[in-house]
Amino acid sequence: MVAACITLLTDFGPGSPFVGVCHAVAQRLAPGVPVIDLAHDVPPCDVRCGAIVLAHALPHLPPGVHVAVVDPGVGTARPRVAAVAGDHAFVGPDNGVLSFALAAAGGAERAVLLDDDRFWWDRRSTTFDGRDVFVPVAAHLARGTPLESLGSSLPPSSLACLPEPIARLEGRSALVEVLVADRFGNLQTAGREELLERIGVAAGEELLVERVPTAGAEPAPRRARRVRTFGDADPGELVVLLDSDARVALAVNLGSAHTALGISPGELVRLRPCT
Amino acid sequence: MVAACITLLTDFGPGSPFVGVCHAVAQRLAPGVPVIDLAHDVPPCDVRCGAIVLAHALPHLPPGVHVAVVDPGVGTARPRVAAVAGDHAFVGPDNGVLSFALAAAGGAERAVLLDDDRFWWDRRSTTFDGRDVFVPVAAHLARGTPLESLGSSLPPSSLACLPEPIARLEGRSALVEVLVADRFGNLQTAGREELLERIGVAAGEELLVERVPTAGAEPAPRRARRVRTFGDADPGELVVLLDSDARVALAVNLGSAHTALGISPGELVRLRPCT
Amino acid sequence: MVAACITLLTDFGPGSPFVGVCHAVAQRLAPGVPVIDLAHDVPPCDVRCGAIVLAHALPHLPPGVHVAVVDPGVGTARPRVAAVAGDHAFVGPDNGVLSFALAAAGGAERAVLLDDDRFWWDRRSTTFDGRDVFVPVAAHLARGTPLESLGSSLPPSSLACLPEPIARLEGRSALVEVLVADRFGNLQTAGREELLERIGVAAGEELLVERVPTAGAEPAPRRARRVRTFGDADPGELVVLLDSDARVALAVNLGSAHTALGISPGELVRLRPCT
Repeated sequence: MVAACITLLTDFGPGSPFVGVCHAVAQRLAPGVPVIDLAHDVPPCDVRCGAIVLAHALPHLPPGVHVAVVDPGVGTARPRVAAVAGDHAFVGPDNGVLSFALAAAGGAERAVLLDDDRFWWDRRSTTFDGRDVFVPVAAHLARGTPLESLGSSLPPSSLACLPEPIARLEGRSALVEVLVADRFGNLQTAGREELLERIGVAAGEELLVERVPTAGAEPAPRRARRVRTFGDADPGELVVLLDSDARVALAVNLGSAHTALGISPGELVRLRPCT
Repeated sequence: MVAACITLLTDFGPGSPFVGVCHAVAQRLAPGVPVIDLAHDVPPCDVRCGAIVLAHALPHLPPGVHVAVVDPGVGTARPRVAAVAGDHAFVGPDNGVLSFALAAAGGAERAVLLDDDRFWWDRRSTTFDGRDVFVPVAAHLARGTPLESLGSSLPPSSLACLPEPIARLEGRSALVEVLVADRFGNLQTAGREELLERIGVAAGEELLVERVPTAGAEPAPRRARRVRTFGDADPGELVVLLDSDARVALAVNLGSAHTALGISPGELVRLRPCT
Repeated sequence: MVAACITLLTDFGPGSPFVGVCHAVAQRLAPGVPVIDLAHDVPPCDVRCGAIVLAHALPHLPPGVHVAVVDPGVGTARPRVAAVAGDHAFVGPDNGVLSFALAAAGGAERAVLLDDDRFWWDRRSTTFDGRDVFVPVAAHLARGTPLESLGSSLPPSSLACLPEPIARLEGRSALVEVLVADRFGNLQTAGREELLERIGVAAGEELLVERVPTAGAEPAPRRARRVRTFGDADPGELVVLLDSDARVALAVNLGSAHTALGISPGELVRLRPCT
């Protein structure tokens, strides 16, 4: 009985044969190990989104090997790596997609460059390291192969890191990066509850939301209300709430904040009290 | 060895990390219990669609615990419930999403309010009861925790019910609700074979299809033919057939009835013989 | 312990209840047998795409029973079949969807017509053979039922075959069929490396890409560069490379060749050296 599980996060798209083939390879190399589809709807090549989704899911994941494949640089010189942090191992390209999750897990303790092709898939390509390298390595890890066997040792501090998401106080306002838009059109930002408290917006109170920087033709700031959950809003009302990752999110009850505000992940939003 | 399985039906969207995290929680709380993705493409917040899909799938499901999360009221006062009917247990918000399946399973025999948070996930939010309450409770049920342990007893008759789908005879015509549009553009209605027989439309015969109510500018009724299966139609022909749930469905062979007719779930359609 | 696994390839769409119900039926008839979702994003009714995806995945699949349901003729006289080739069994409609995979597996050794309904699902319809026939038969095969028990013997040579994808030398140019467009907009063609070599386009060299036949108003041939992997291209550059199935593919780095060229699967493309 193998205890560990493998999770897969990719930008391959749900229902894609790229996902199916990764499962097939895992099944061949580590039969009986559970494989969980963590997410496959990451926007194509959006490394930052993949990194955020993995980090936010981490507190809920079983101990195991987490594979993240958002990899526009596949086949180029960017390294392939695996690292261990706490009960978790992570496998993927060294482009930062693992960085937020490694930090959330307490920081990489040990890392290796995946340069020993004895642990790779027999059939190779230059364009699909998920199938050829990352899932096979994850299967070996899940079956108990020690990290150090999989390649040359790397200083954990050398792993690629993405810039920290922006969430800071500026005077009486909060400047926050929009991280992810979900299927419901909710916009998750990098802000936490403390930031709302520091700008003095308590539950039930109103605040102003505006995109930053504002161009000349920009619409006026939008008024929103801080609520506890989606259903506390009137249908169509713009609200601010703490989402299931404990992040400040913008939402429109039974509508889409993404569409209503025309703001996308990667953009900045300023939140400030109405008075 | 645990015998039961867990099924998940949500409106989270395929490939969503919300689905992935539910699997992760199930894996942590009930390792070894099979988890089946019943459907994740329910239109966002469409409780009625979720209820219909679950009920129609039920005859094919293994005995187990069926979780349905289409939950626009998450975090509000709407109750969280679990109920048992025959070999099946159901877990979800008490907004009617379970109601058609419970009826199809013979009616709820026992029900509880999920008010004992010892069976919930350690990490809570106000916006994601699927992860925090419903899947954890399902995991406990699948591992053998008795329903009664999970919370206060509820009279089964108090559970929320959605209005029954409309399918009735009106003179020589049938008035039927459109229930679901699938990926192929087929429109499933609430009608059964008996209704076609009562309006006198046998296999191979033609009938008229029109949206109800008809506005002034409405197109004329569309002519359709009752066939046995999709391939009995000419390419592009509008047909009426009994689908895999034994419901009257509108289809266009190698095309989309949804697009061709411009009719959506929730709308009413009148079917009547040509003469 | 059952060794074999079942894989599912369909055009039902990811997250569809049609997929979920197939899993449910497999779980009831073959509990414990792993079921891998090979692909569900095959364009609706696109038998040729399904056939190609299955064949290209085959080298990576574990020994098992592979079900392919792209079946616009469901319920009509088209036969339902199962066949064995090497370590693999295949189940599906006899419309050619299995043909490329059977050939890739060395050719069907034995085949049967699925005409013994004792191995079918109890609940039947005329429109969903995936649930009613193919998955139940696959479950029986995975549990060890011999192929010959499942129906009347068929000469393997009688199975439906799709036309071979076009990939041929024409003078100093290569004429290739576009097979599949993936989520990233990459266009996989039927060409292999040898064809690029025969037209004299080495890595790093430029070539011309044009749709065939060219209409009067057709845009001029597009210039592209043969590269090793996506990241070798400049952002937005049109490139030709060998993809993870060892096929010649057209790609735009961080963009979509599908959109940029306006060429779709089933169309022909001519590749020729610039000079």
